[in-house]
Formats: sequence, structure tokens, C-alpha cells
Amino acid sequence: MNKVITISREFGSGGREIGKRLADELGFTYYDREIVEELAVATGLSERYIQDISEKGIYPHSFQFGKTFSTFGVLQSNQTEVFVKQQEIVKKIAEKGDCVIVGRGANVILKDYKSMNIFVYADMKSKVNRCKIKATNCEEIQEKELEKKIRQVDKNRKNYHSLISNLEWGKKENYDLCINTSNIEIKDVILSLADYIREYFRRTEVEK
Amino acid sequence: MNKVITISREFGSGGREIGKRLADELGFTYYDREIVEELAVATGLSERYIQDISEKGIYPHSFQFGKTFSTFGVLQSNQTEVFVKQQEIVKKIAEKGDCVIVGRGANVILKDYKSMNIFVYADMKSKVNRCKIKATNCEEIQEKELEKKIRQVDKNRKNYHSLISNLEWGKKENYDLCINTSNIEIKDVILSLADYIREYFRRTEVEK
Repeated sequence: MNKVITISREFGSGGREIGKRLADELGFTYYDREIVEELAVATGLSERYIQDISEKGIYPHSFQFGKTFSTFGVLQSNQTEVFVKQQEIVKKIAEKGDCVIVGRGANVILKDYKSMNIFVYADMKSKVNRCKIKATNCEEIQEKELEKKIRQVDKNRKNYHSLISNLEWGKKENYDLCINTSNIEIKDVILSLADYIREYFRRTEVEK
Repeated sequence: MNKVITISREFGSGGREIGKRLADELGFTYYDREIVEELAVATGLSERYIQDISEKGIYPHSFQFGKTFSTFGVLQSNQTEVFVKQQEIVKKIAEKGDCVIVGRGANVILKDYKSMNIFVYADMKSKVNRCKIKATNCEEIQEKELEKKIRQVDKNRKNYHSLISNLEWGKKENYDLCINTSNIEIKDVILSLADYIREYFRRTEVEK
């Protein structure tokens, strides 16, 4: 079985950076945007819409592709289609080779694959700072707006997760390692994290 | 400021082993039983009683040293005394030198010390297995009994924590790193954890 790392993360916590750097260090393939792109091709829906399903939530007044979405809490036809295809794509990726998958509920989809599941989080102040650094100089972003956006994206990720699984998003028991990035410099802890992960997979190899 | 690591842990998750091994690897002083011993001397209470306050809970019918304890939810005089002394002892330890402190709410007591706070947890199956391995051969322990004990100790630790702090015990946001030991061999991840911790403290040194 291939070695698969899934990264779930709060918005602005640097989970994507951890995933990318770990993939580079371990020589694993990195998947993030690629899944959304493949989903768009497979479903005929736009990449933005697919991203929005998990990050912006679906509301009663939302119209997309001529379809009306009812109240949030049940999967609608487009969402169901996206989730079914997403499962196929994520499983196919896991079967291709060693990889790091960021987001898309991969920890839930791959629960029978013995993936190593990481959750990345941080306090609000450092998430806001990280978002500000990533924003272009042209953008004028108020801290309060950023905070609101961070809370909203995470709320929607949590809601979306509850639609596709009965495992709670962000609950530490559902992950192998939970990393608070508030007081670390991500690039400096990658070597130690990669070593930790190597030992994790060495142990699971032994147990087979 | 000295480098202080606090380890909070679920019963049977191996938190104490992680603390001891990290202290050895990093050359830090290790504190666990020593705090209870010192507390017993400072308060005149028995070591067992001090341990019981946080791990067995205090119930209405409990009698100890001629005092009656009322319902759980408020600190009683003995408990208050233990907690006040505990604060003093833990702070004194933190001021002595680099150290690892297991339990005793040290993460709460040292919140102004920039301690690195770790929470160690595991699934029930692996906690039961760990407890069984640690038990002597003479002991006949039923798995169901062990599960009950594990849940009870953790419930009491959580309750005790809520008496001394408004930070929730075991909530990942209150820790820098949360380690699930269900699928790792503790001794094999110590070097990588120690490296992670060295980077953590290097960063906090730089920020001073």
C-alpha cells in the first residue's frame, strides 16, 4: 500500500505550505488544486463552483447551472456528483503512489487506506498575519474582514465535512497529529516532521 | 527564560513515556511524581490524596482528614491549598532550569512562561493495550474494567482542570502539538519530536 498523508487545515494556518514542503522533503507527489481541476473536467462544473461547495457553503437562494439549491444540510444533486467523483479521484490518486493530499475530505475518503492524517491549526492572530503576508500589496484588507472570512471558510469546511462524514472536522481524535503553527516557523520544522512521518509509516509497514 | 515543556495526557496514552524520553534526549530535568511528593511535604497531605484530587474526583460522601467535601464543582479548602502550593512549586521548577513537566495543570500555571504545551492522546483500544502491558502478570484485569477506569480518570482530569482554569482540558487550541500515539512506537519518534521542539524554542528565542 502506498504512503498517503492527508492534510486538513484551518484557513490561514499554513496547512498547504506544510503539505507542499513535506511532499518535497519526502519525495511524495503533492495534490491540492489538481483535484479540483480534475473534478471540474469530470463533472463539467467550474473549478470555482467546486471550491465554493466546501468553502462558501450552499444557501437556499444560490443558483448555479440553472439549478436551485434548497436549505443547507442535505447534499444536492451537483454536490452529490462532486462528492462521488471526488471519492473516485482521491482513491485513484492514493493508488498511484506515495502522496500528500491537501483538503477535499481525503482523510475521510481514505479511512481504509491507513493514511496518516494531519490537522493544521493556529490562533486567529497568526492566521490573520499569514493571510496579510500572502495578500498582494494592492489589496487593502481590513483585519476584521479577514477574521470574518477565516471564520466563515472554516465554518463552511466544517459543515461540508459533516455532510460527507460522521467524523467531526478538526476534532483531534480523527487525526494522527495536530500541529499548531502559531509559534513555529513552518520551514524550520519540516525536517523533523518528515522524520516523524517516516517512523509512522515504518511502524505501519511492520504491522502489516 | 528557561525552556519548559508541559505534557498533558489521556490516561494510558503514553504521555509520561514521551515526557521522560524527551527529557532524556533534550537533557532537560523531568518532573512528574516529584511534584506530588513536594506537594505532600508542603501541605501535610498524603501523596495518594493529592493524586486523587485530580484523578478520582471529590464526591459528596468523601471524608479525608476529618473534613467533609461538598458536591464537585467548587474547590474545597484542601483542594485550594493543594492548588496554591502546586502553583508555587511548578513556577519554582520552571525558574530552576529547562524541564519537562507532566500533568498537574502545568500548561495553565505556566501560561505566561511561553512553555511548549503538548497533549498526548490515543484511541481506546491502544490505551487499554498499553495499560495491560504495564500491569504486572499477577493482576487480572478485564478490558471492560480498564476502559471504565480510563474514562473515569480522564473525566476527573477534565473536571479538575475546569476548576483551576477556563481553558478546556484536551482542546487542541490550548496546546502547541497534539500527538496521537495509537499508531506510533513512542521510542521511535522521540528524536524527531526533540528536533521539532528545538526548532520551537529556537523560534521563541529569536522573537524575544
